[in-house]
Amino acid sequence: MWFDLPTPGFSFEVLATLGHARAGILHTPRGDIPTPVFMPVGTLGTVKAMTPDELRAEPLDARIILGNTYHLYLRPGLEVISAAGGLHRFAAWDRPVLTDSGGFQVFSLAAINQIDDDGVTFRSHIDGSKHRLTPEVSMHIQGVLGSDIAMCFDQCPPGDATADVHETAMARTTAWAARCRAVERPPGQALFGIVQGGIDPERRRRHMAEITALDFDGHALGGLAVGESLDDTYRVLDDIAHTLPAERPRYLMGVGTPGDLARGIAAGIDMFDCVMPTRNARNGYLFTSAGRVNIPNAQHRTDFGPIEPDCPCATCRSHSRAYLRHLYVAKEILYSRLATLHNLTYYARHVRRLRDEILSAGRRA
Amino acid sequence: MWFDLPTPGFSFEVLATLGHARAGILHTPRGDIPTPVFMPVGTLGTVKAMTPDELRAEPLDARIILGNTYHLYLRPGLEVISAAGGLHRFAAWDRPVLTDSGGFQVFSLAAINQIDDDGVTFRSHIDGSKHRLTPEVSMHIQGVLGSDIAMCFDQCPPGDATADVHETAMARTTAWAARCRAVERPPGQALFGIVQGGIDPERRRRHMAEITALDFDGHALGGLAVGESLDDTYRVLDDIAHTLPAERPRYLMGVGTPGDLARGIAAGIDMFDCVMPTRNARNGYLFTSAGRVNIPNAQHRTDFGPIEPDCPCATCRSHSRAYLRHLYVAKEILYSRLATLHNLTYYARHVRRLRDEILSAGRRA
Repeated sequence: MWFDLPTPGFSFEVLATLGHARAGILHTPRGDIPTPVFMPVGTLGTVKAMTPDELRAEPLDARIILGNTYHLYLRPGLEVISAAGGLHRFAAWDRPVLTDSGGFQVFSLAAINQIDDDGVTFRSHIDGSKHRLTPEVSMHIQGVLGSDIAMCFDQCPPGDATADVHETAMARTTAWAARCRAVERPPGQALFGIVQGGIDPERRRRHMAEITALDFDGHALGGLAVGESLDDTYRVLDDIAHTLPAERPRYLMGVGTPGDLARGIAAGIDMFDCVMPTRNARNGYLFTSAGRVNIPNAQHRTDFGPIEPDCPCATCRSHSRAYLRHLYVAKEILYSRLATLHNLTYYARHVRRLRDEILSAGRRA
Repeated sequence: MWFDLPTPGFSFEVLATLGHARAGILHTPRGDIPTPVFMPVGTLGTVKAMTPDELRAEPLDARIILGNTYHLYLRPGLEVISAAGGLHRFAAWDRPVLTDSGGFQVFSLAAINQIDDDGVTFRSHIDGSKHRLTPEVSMHIQGVLGSDIAMCFDQCPPGDATADVHETAMARTTAWAARCRAVERPPGQALFGIVQGGIDPERRRRHMAEITALDFDGHALGGLAVGESLDDTYRVLDDIAHTLPAERPRYLMGVGTPGDLARGIAAGIDMFDCVMPTRNARNGYLFTSAGRVNIPNAQHRTDFGPIEPDCPCATCRSHSRAYLRHLYVAKEILYSRLATLHNLTYYARHVRRLRDEILSAGRRA
């Protein structure tokens, strides 16, 4: 089943379904993205410790990465990225990029000065300088970045927010979504809407109806894994994901563990991003099919086997746990490189395996 | 001219000379090393920020790297490297490795508890633990590391040491060299002697006569660039380097800038090592034929050209000064990778160009 998306050049192909799970291809002007897909996070115009060549190379083969609007707006700033001709040319990355709206970082990292129905005034977490983000400003920044998929500017309340806070955030997120939708985007830039509503099913459904009415190229579930219990996350996922429009890609923002990804895919999600594989790598946690390895542990001191025997990544093909542990303990840069490459490869293979299962055991769509 | 060296499997071929400069090949059981050669420093079993694949790949093509006995003895320790089967297997590096003796680091990094004619007792700079290095212990460690070229344990006085200190250090270094020479080495491990003597030509010549009498596979000038003036360094180089035995490789330890390398090669040196290209890279200094670039400078903020237009390294082929400056300012790991790759490539090309000049303009030997 082939669905044209509202933005010219974008289409979504569902190849097979298995329960609520789907396997497909998101076609974009900068290349095809097999879904489900995990998007490595490239906060500041670099997926930390990786070169573009490494991200593109098999077996990692990242088809799309994420860039953070808030971070890139502060550093290097729009003047530099604009002069470079956009984020792709600045970072030498020729495949698709999805940019978030800056909303999540403003609410989680910056010192908020004022939040009102028009937007947010905040101080930079780097130098305290004062800035203002509105739906229009976020879209302008994402336009200069030149991402392939832009996200609507939204308000994401913490997991323990009151009903009132959720209602206000939902109303603002809807109004801001409509304003984002109204901004003219550069050619080849799709726009996804974000569904908020916390863990209350009625609120989620109500907000979903508001957002999906605005005819976005895809829909994201925001406001999950922001402090609520895992049971609540999964309950909302199971309730809501499969009810998002089937003919548009569905994106679960900022989630999660390999298990979360499997759960999300079963619930009908097509796209994921998370700092977990990259950040965990740098902090000494390596993913394997037998569970997470804590590389500083003394047991790895003279373990000359690879992180995972059947892993085809360059780290596992050439380097031992003992060597990685040594590099970690000695705080060597090479450790972060090798560990990140492995964890991203683990995530990519994990999601590709789940996709293959849907394609082989599912129903052709 | 082909010279067999004392250790089986090693030979030194001088192909051409130009004044005192020589171009040749140091043949080792693990591969040929065209000389003059710059050896990247791999302190802790990793040339900081680089993978073995990157070091081996053209246009960098590092033929030999250096490992630090002192650092590797403390971390990961001999038990780990011995269990791995040596440094090559531990670090997945299949080309030659030269190890220093630990002497220089003991005298510059550690807290010395006692130094006597037998050896040095010191406390680790990491955890304060107490250790003792003697010529025999240094050779044992280098044997376990399994380096292709071991260095004699020497005493390296600072540049401003008194004549008495120099005389004592020279006497010890000679006695220790004889003891190192007497230790049985693993097959395929050559041993170089080190000439001390500070900046006094008479002392240098006298110590050279003592060391060269011991029939080492090669000879190093130690105790240069340790605080004396550059004029003094160059004067000693010009006086002494070309008088070291012509049929053995000559190694200038811990030196230096691209200009120092040119000067050393002209004086008759064949081998160099220095942390300058790697450490400077991490600190924001990039080498170009037009001089050193300080990448954090604001002038590079929107400079979308490469570090050096005709440089064939992957950094210059794909990335701009503006992007590197951004990564540096944002303290991104990728910066250190890209900068190190460029600086090492600059050094490798610089030395290869000088070698080509000797081969084309010099006299066949």
